[in-house]
Amino acid sequence: MKLATLPDGTRDGRLVVVSRDLEHAVFAGDIAPTLQHALEHWSDSAARLGTLYQALCAGRAPEAMAFDPGAALAPLPRAWQWLDGSAFQSHGDLMAKVFKIDNPHSDRPLMYQGLSDRFLAPREDVRLPSEADGIDFEGEFGVITDEVPMGSSPEAAAQHIRLIVQINDWSLRTLAPIEMKTGFGWIQAKPACSMAPVAVTPDELGAAWKDGRVALPLKVWWNGREFGAANGYAMAFSFPQLLAHAARTRRLCAGTVIGSGTVSNENYREVGSSCIAERRGIELVDLGKAQTSYMRFGDTVRMEAVLADGALLFGAIDQRVVEAPPAGS
Amino acid sequence: MKLATLPDGTRDGRLVVVSRDLEHAVFAGDIAPTLQHALEHWSDSAARLGTLYQALCAGRAPEAMAFDPGAALAPLPRAWQWLDGSAFQSHGDLMAKVFKIDNPHSDRPLMYQGLSDRFLAPREDVRLPSEADGIDFEGEFGVITDEVPMGSSPEAAAQHIRLIVQINDWSLRTLAPIEMKTGFGWIQAKPACSMAPVAVTPDELGAAWKDGRVALPLKVWWNGREFGAANGYAMAFSFPQLLAHAARTRRLCAGTVIGSGTVSNENYREVGSSCIAERRGIELVDLGKAQTSYMRFGDTVRMEAVLADGALLFGAIDQRVVEAPPAGS
Repeated sequence: MKLATLPDGTRDGRLVVVSRDLEHAVFAGDIAPTLQHALEHWSDSAARLGTLYQALCAGRAPEAMAFDPGAALAPLPRAWQWLDGSAFQSHGDLMAKVFKIDNPHSDRPLMYQGLSDRFLAPREDVRLPSEADGIDFEGEFGVITDEVPMGSSPEAAAQHIRLIVQINDWSLRTLAPIEMKTGFGWIQAKPACSMAPVAVTPDELGAAWKDGRVALPLKVWWNGREFGAANGYAMAFSFPQLLAHAARTRRLCAGTVIGSGTVSNENYREVGSSCIAERRGIELVDLGKAQTSYMRFGDTVRMEAVLADGALLFGAIDQRVVEAPPAGS
Repeated sequence: MKLATLPDGTRDGRLVVVSRDLEHAVFAGDIAPTLQHALEHWSDSAARLGTLYQALCAGRAPEAMAFDPGAALAPLPRAWQWLDGSAFQSHGDLMAKVFKIDNPHSDRPLMYQGLSDRFLAPREDVRLPSEADGIDFEGEFGVITDEVPMGSSPEAAAQHIRLIVQINDWSLRTLAPIEMKTGFGWIQAKPACSMAPVAVTPDELGAAWKDGRVALPLKVWWNGREFGAANGYAMAFSFPQLLAHAARTRRLCAGTVIGSGTVSNENYREVGSSCIAERRGIELVDLGKAQTSYMRFGDTVRMEAVLADGALLFGAIDQRVVEAPPAGS
């Protein structure tokens, strides 16, 4: 099934079930007012939401309305926990080379805890303070869980993956290495992320949900020009492995979002990249100098994933970066 | 005024106003059902909560009941954002020496984003998987804000400090350096924190709220023996400075909790420490070898802060560490 959140003036918005073709939606408030509520009561809500989804897709939902992905909020407009992995080895290797970071292949996934009190809507302008911060996108896939007990194995954690989402992890590259050097992770370098309008259950991916990974290209356009189409299957650690890593010393709350890290493939020179930093890294290796600048105010980025049959899976992220107004204005 | 949260079967509990002497409480549901709700509507709720507080302290609140700090949840049982500083230079210097970390005095505060989906209740058992992880406490002060605009100056951010709290930032020392080395910050090394039962407005501290710092000793007992009483005033960066640092590229949501880092004073050999790691660091420097072991299952830690007139400010954190049951049990 497919779920989205429409604005209603509250911080958490209003849950809707969306048809497979993203054409129609129906309010799910009788089952769960918000997606967070649905996740906290998944054993009760999932089957009922699924029944409503089947009716909607079959044209048998009397309250159905047209669905406008451009009007949707992030499926989870805020989350209690956002943990972002960096699971693509080809990206890690390149970044280690560029930033001269010691990056041995490890049996431990890389992961940071990020800002979760707000996920930007898929068409919302992204307000940032300065072009000088090195504004970059990071196209990712992610999963949303219900509660995962502390100490869960990857196999056990896999059973708690309820939804799959598509994320843009906005990154400020000038600030990132300064914060990394402290060992404390990122605060200033990682502002709010964006989410594509529709969260889907794993069965919606069919064969493209494979080994706990999203085996689909993530298509990225920067200012309307194709920038990358790397495949999500290349994760060195699967989502269940990322979940088990995170759950080693904590239970993961219902509504935890776990990200893959920027999608990257070894043949990045052919398929392109999901972030500018990677392209700059390739240029540095190939040409001795990074030539592509980071984003300017007014720039746009679009990201989407399409199933083998051509169906748009999550809807699209399509945003413009703009200068944030000064504080107090 | 003083605020606390009592359990009612929901994840966010039920807001109460607590008398200055912590003896009585009254439900505040007519004003705000939860502390998060109060913070999201602070301009409406603060004055009304204050009026109720004055009535309660004067013995004029008809619905008053006895307050049992042992039954309270954390004032914020879950928060949308928890950002923990490390603002005590004497602690940073010592840790840098012990862990051989390059730690130049910096004009940038140290800060990480931590697990916020759960703050443990002040008397709740702390369930952790293994003594081998190096179980340690970190006594801290913290502030809770309403919404802070992106780009706020320290002076502007200071106006959004609504409540002051006392926190135990549980830490797993065996895992910490492994995660620090990645630059991504801590996931496994930082399980859920605990909060003392009562959150207070800054005016409750009187002269002890000084230069954006809590100028009070944080008394720590480990297994009933006094362990430290370092003063919170020694922060190299004030809470307003920590807030402005965090708000550089993000607006801080209402209900953001910002921590001071483990309270530490230069004369730690006299006043003691607020975490075991610091005592071990002192031993390493003085004796060539750390002699104090980290916590064992069954150990207890108590933390409290007392005003000059002897009044207990936040109530006490008083917890026992126990072995977590295996996942699935």
